[in-house]
Formats: sequence, C-alpha cells, structure tokens
Amino acid sequence: MNTALPKEVTFQANEIEYHMPASPVVVVCLDGSADAYLDAALARDAMPNVKKMSLNGHRAQARSALPSFTNVNNASIVTGCPPSVHGICGNFFLDPDSGEEVMMNSARFLRSHTIMSIAAKAGRQVGVVTAKEKLRDIFAHELDGIAFSTEKANQATLEKHGIEDVETMVGKPTPHIYSGEASVYVLEAGVALLRSGRSDFLYLSTTDYMQHTYEPEQPESIEFYRQLDTQIGLLLALGARVGITADHGMNAKQTVDGNPNVIYLQTELTHAFGNGFSVILPITDPYVVHHGALGSFAVIHTPKGTAPDAIAQWCQQRQGITEVYDKETAASKLQLPADRLGDLVVMSGRDVVIGRTPADHDLSALKVGLRSHGGRYEEMVPFIFSHPLKHAYKRKIIGDPRNFQIFDFSINGLQA
Amino acid sequence: MNTALPKEVTFQANEIEYHMPASPVVVVCLDGSADAYLDAALARDAMPNVKKMSLNGHRAQARSALPSFTNVNNASIVTGCPPSVHGICGNFFLDPDSGEEVMMNSARFLRSHTIMSIAAKAGRQVGVVTAKEKLRDIFAHELDGIAFSTEKANQATLEKHGIEDVETMVGKPTPHIYSGEASVYVLEAGVALLRSGRSDFLYLSTTDYMQHTYEPEQPESIEFYRQLDTQIGLLLALGARVGITADHGMNAKQTVDGNPNVIYLQTELTHAFGNGFSVILPITDPYVVHHGALGSFAVIHTPKGTAPDAIAQWCQQRQGITEVYDKETAASKLQLPADRLGDLVVMSGRDVVIGRTPADHDLSALKVGLRSHGGRYEEMVPFIFSHPLKHAYKRKIIGDPRNFQIFDFSINGLQA
Repeated sequence: MNTALPKEVTFQANEIEYHMPASPVVVVCLDGSADAYLDAALARDAMPNVKKMSLNGHRAQARSALPSFTNVNNASIVTGCPPSVHGICGNFFLDPDSGEEVMMNSARFLRSHTIMSIAAKAGRQVGVVTAKEKLRDIFAHELDGIAFSTEKANQATLEKHGIEDVETMVGKPTPHIYSGEASVYVLEAGVALLRSGRSDFLYLSTTDYMQHTYEPEQPESIEFYRQLDTQIGLLLALGARVGITADHGMNAKQTVDGNPNVIYLQTELTHAFGNGFSVILPITDPYVVHHGALGSFAVIHTPKGTAPDAIAQWCQQRQGITEVYDKETAASKLQLPADRLGDLVVMSGRDVVIGRTPADHDLSALKVGLRSHGGRYEEMVPFIFSHPLKHAYKRKIIGDPRNFQIFDFSINGLQA
Repeated sequence: MNTALPKEVTFQANEIEYHMPASPVVVVCLDGSADAYLDAALARDAMPNVKKMSLNGHRAQARSALPSFTNVNNASIVTGCPPSVHGICGNFFLDPDSGEEVMMNSARFLRSHTIMSIAAKAGRQVGVVTAKEKLRDIFAHELDGIAFSTEKANQATLEKHGIEDVETMVGKPTPHIYSGEASVYVLEAGVALLRSGRSDFLYLSTTDYMQHTYEPEQPESIEFYRQLDTQIGLLLALGARVGITADHGMNAKQTVDGNPNVIYLQTELTHAFGNGFSVILPITDPYVVHHGALGSFAVIHTPKGTAPDAIAQWCQQRQGITEVYDKETAASKLQLPADRLGDLVVMSGRDVVIGRTPADHDLSALKVGLRSHGGRYEEMVPFIFSHPLKHAYKRKIIGDPRNFQIFDFSINGLQA
C-alpha cells in the first residue's frame, strides 16, 4: 500500500467548488439499488459496513434525475448537474439534426466537463471503474487517469484506459456482464486501485442486471449485496471517505399473473389518431436481457398536423400513464434538454412500463418477471456517507438532496 | 387472558370477501411513518420485532391514497377503498352544497361501510383505538364494538365507546395528544384489549406528532419506535396476525436556512389573476402544532369567468409545484370524489408546502422546522406482515399494492 497522503486540491467544476481533502475519496453508484434492496440485506445482517456507515455517518434518500435511467443519472453524477445542463437525457434519442434514432452513450453528446477530469488536472489520481462498457466513453471524457469497464477488463490498455493489467491487479478473470460478479468486480477493482496507490479518487459504477432479475429479499440479492458490502468495508479500512448512491430504483412491472404490464403506446396512438407517431423509449440499449427495452418513461414525436394537446389529453386519460408533459414543461419541470426531447413526455405507474409496438420488444429475452425503472416511482435512491456531515451539509441534506450532489457531499460535506 | 379461539367468520365489505381466521388479527397504522423512520430505528437495533416480521413474514412498500393525509388514508384503510368510493378526500373541504368550508372528519361524509363494522356484525369482537379523537367518528361508524381515542381515554363510556375503564385497563393515565405517548398508548391499549379477551380483531391508528417534530435519526424518534416495537412484540406474543402500514410518509419542508418552504398559492394567484380565488388546504385540522396547516396538496376554486386552463398552465410553471390536474383528471388519476374537489388540484415537491396567504398560517405554532406531507413524495408507506404471504398474495404484493389493502392482506393473505 502506498502510504503517502493524497494531494489536497481545490477546483471548480460546473460552477461548484470542490475542496478535496488529503484522504482518498470514493463515490459508489450502486445501479438500480432501490432502498428496498438495502433494507432486505440489512435486515439479514448482510451489510454490516453500510449499517456502520448509517450509524457513524449518515443515511438518507435523494432524488435522482428523471428519466430514472442509468446513462442520465451517471452523467448527472459525474458532472454534478441535471440533464438540462449536461445534455444526456436517455440511452437513446431521436436526433433532430439527422432525424435518426441514435444511442446517446457517447461523450460527444455531453455538454459539461466531468468532476473527475477536472480533479485529475488539479493533481488527483483518478480511477473510474464501470461494469458496462457503454458508460466508459462518458466517464473517460477528457480524463487523464484510469477508466475501464469490468465487462472488458481484459482489453484495457495503458494507452486508452490508463491501465493494462486489470485481471492481475484484481486477481480474477473478466466477469460476464450478465452476472452479479460484473458489479462486485467493479468494487474489487476499486479496492485494488486504492490499495496499490494507483488512484486516490475513485468513481465506481455497477450494473443493475441483478436488480432487474431478482427481488430484494431473494437469496441471490442478499448474497449480492453481502459481497458489495464486503468491498465497501475494504474501502473504509483503506481510509477512504465513501459516498454511496444509485442512479435509479427498481420496481416489478408486471400483472398479478406474472406477465409484463406493458402499454404499447405507439400502437395505441396509431389506433386512436392515425399513422406518423414515433415513440422513443430512452431505456433502449444493447443489454436487452435486463428489461427488453421496457421502462416507465417515453418521448412522443407527434405527426405533423396533429394537435399535441388532444394527444396529451388522451395520454392523460390512459390508465397506467401517470404524468404527461409537453416539451417545454418537461424541460423546465424535469430539468431536461428541450432540444433532445420530442413533443410530449410521458411516465407510467409503479407497476407499468411503456413499449412501442409488440413487434419492437422481444419479451422472450426476459428470463424472469419484468423489473424495470425510468419513471417517478424509481426516482428515490439511497444517499449514504461514511462520515458525519458538516453542519452546512446537515442542513443541505434536509429538504430535497439530489443524487448528483454525491460528489459535493462526499468531497466537501464530510467531517474529517 | 381469554384462551378461547376467536370465531372464524366470512363476510363481504365493499366488494371484497374477508375470511377471518380463528386467530386474533391486528392492523396497525403508524401515522406518518416514512420508511426512513423504520430504517433508522432498525439500524440501531431498536425494532427487533419488526425486524423479525420482515424476516419471518414480509416487508414491502405500498402506495397510499392521495392526498397523502391522515383522514383520507385512515378512511381508505378501514373501508378497503380509494377516496373516490368512500368519499373522504381531506380533513377539510369546500362543501359545494353549502358553499362553506367544513371539516370532513364526520362519518356523515363517509360513503362506505367499514370493514370493522361488518366484521362485528359477523361475530368478531372488534376494538378500534386511535390517538386523535377527530378520527373516532369515522372509525366508530355503524360499529357494534369498542372504539375510543387515547386523547380522550378517560372520557370513554360503555354506551358511546363500548368501554369505560380504559385507564385502569392500560394502567396509565390519559396521555397528552402532543406526545409520543399518545401513540404508544394506542398500542398498549390494543395489547390490553387482546390480552383481556375483550377484542380479537383490532385496528390501531397512531398519530404523527413525533414524525412532524423529529427527523428519523434523532434519538427521540429512535426511542419512540423502540416503544412501538415493544408493543408490537406483545401483540405477536399473544398470537395475533399483525399487519403494519402507514397513512402517509413525511418529509422536511424547509429551505436550507431552516425556514418553512411555502408557496402562498392564493396570494400568488390573486396577484397574477385578480380576486376571487379560494385555495383549500385539505390538511387543515385543529392540530396546528403539527404542521401549521401546511402540506403538499391544495385544491383551487377558480373565480367565475376565469379560464382554468390558463391558471393550470401558470401553476404548472411555478417552481415547486410538481403536478397540476383539472377536476376530472384528478378524480380519475388520483381516485378522488369529483363532487368534493375544486376546479384544480395541485401538488408540491418533496421539500415544498402550499399555503393560502401568509395571514392564514401561524408559523409560530411550529416549534421546530417544518416536516409535513400530502403530496406524491409522501405516497409510499411501509407494508409489513407477521406471517409469510400465501402464494396468491405473494403475486399480489408484486406490482402496485395499496396501503388500503392492509386488511385484505392481513385477514386473507397470511399463511397460518
């Protein structure tokens, strides 16, 4: 272990001042961790280190950014900004410039600098580990440091990822992305980076394959969180200030008979108003086993010549749809970039997902009942710190803390 | 202790069949118990019996009825119906028949029979204990059984309340309503009713003075929940099937400087559109120390001749307001009785309350920072059972369970 203290540095990122202490700082995003997962594991004494954090530090809940999706919230967390500022409002959108549906997981869509890239310029040794390769491009944006995915751990190169011996360092082979191990490996890599002195400022972002697959009290979930907790304990033992949050929660989205509870919105709109609708599902990504591209948030591009008001009214009346906004209201109320939205934005209920047409979704890819996210009912996430909050941050956490303040709280808000 | 088994009975209430087992059944509504209160107490090992319930039985979260207020949800729980059916949509409303603002805490506003009254007719010995006297009238509606408030425990008479020796039975004097004891006493009375054989079917409903006053991790909250847990342990030891839920959650509604975060909506609407608005705050009740009549839900009666659409649009743009519905949409989306609403219904954010005019609210009555409820962010509540769920109810709890299904789950859904 490198026993030299990290460098105390001060820098500004996206209008927030960060005063990094002379100790390691680790921010963890436990993808898809609705509080219920922690509660179930804590009740079974499977998370002694998180329990300790809640007793010695602070445990609260924070509001994530909407839509409650992975890219959106990871981009918010690493910039400290809402989507209206950083520009990433889904995994997927209809680019108004090209008229094409494109993935938004490239840093070219990011409109803000990341906290990590600026911290690295200020002299901290930054390490970023993500489970999904899709997020790496955003995390590595302008970064002079280490950034790799566990999904492609064995492909990391010194030139591109700032590290090349990941499997040796962790002592384990590259895990499969559809596994709990893909996430545990993220934290194990973080521990190894810290222990070896390669990094003193870490962002560790897991994947939610397990939460899409298992309910909180299932033994697989308990064992998964037990393993995560063990690694969190090692981070604490290495002297790190640790902040834990999530990108979004997770709910079962199925009917009592166990089938996915889907509103095929493009089909229904076409039936009611005619052709020409394009319903964009920003949860869409290449990892279909998780959710079959079904989430609780959709963007509607209405055909030319139709009245968006009548369509909004229709959506509002549709059972299972909970909130409906026109583009401008969505942009202001949900803090989204108006230029990357459609004409209407809709969200669905706790147990309801929105699909496009039946042909667009391969439900056979779902191995078990559908669990997903994206809407208001997956907005609340854990917000947990290893150390007591400073007085000013005790006040700040009362009210409406946001998950994308996790770096602010972890760097600026903890008592030494 | 009466060792005879309770009578196994079957009855129907508001279109749901209840098959009451030959064991005591106790439903507990822990007023204002956001999950965070349980989590903080559980982390401090202060709720061993609730922990046991979550391990041996089931712990989940359920959605309460909106507005997330006490009367609304207690009425929903005791009838098993949403407000659109039972008619109670606030503590307070503008009666369109009389044009007057009236309290809605009288059974004359209730449009459904209670589960307890029907169970009593079917032969169960029903006991209802509430902290606040204001709720007693609804709970005692058509009830041939015991129903009293701890606030007026010493005034209970055999004729009116079905019991007259409450202080002797509990072994304690009547508590003050502005205390934790007022709620602990509810559970103590329940234990005494069960132990003495006077009741075998109980509904116990506490008050949220403590949650309005203290944050989850404050020692006062931990001690309060420790005392509640002890009584829950006694109920379990007496062989009861126990179901626990809440009427609503609770959030801090203040700015970073510690002041109440209030939108004075009637003042603002008058300023923007002229006179004639009547903003009704359905949280309004005689217990002002709790919340100063400030909650996150309001009903707007617009002046004749104004366009509700323009006012809705204005509300939608107002920062801090989260959802805006016209009467018909509110009635269908939020399951509210249209004939008891105004023209518009609005909700505010996690840290925001809605007031009428500054003169209408005595903020000096608030002894500490404002904590309140009423909106979407206080919708989720605990849903906890002492015994494992039957298969059909395991399916039913996945998805979108409601807190007003607590009797259904506790009576019909638990394995023997």
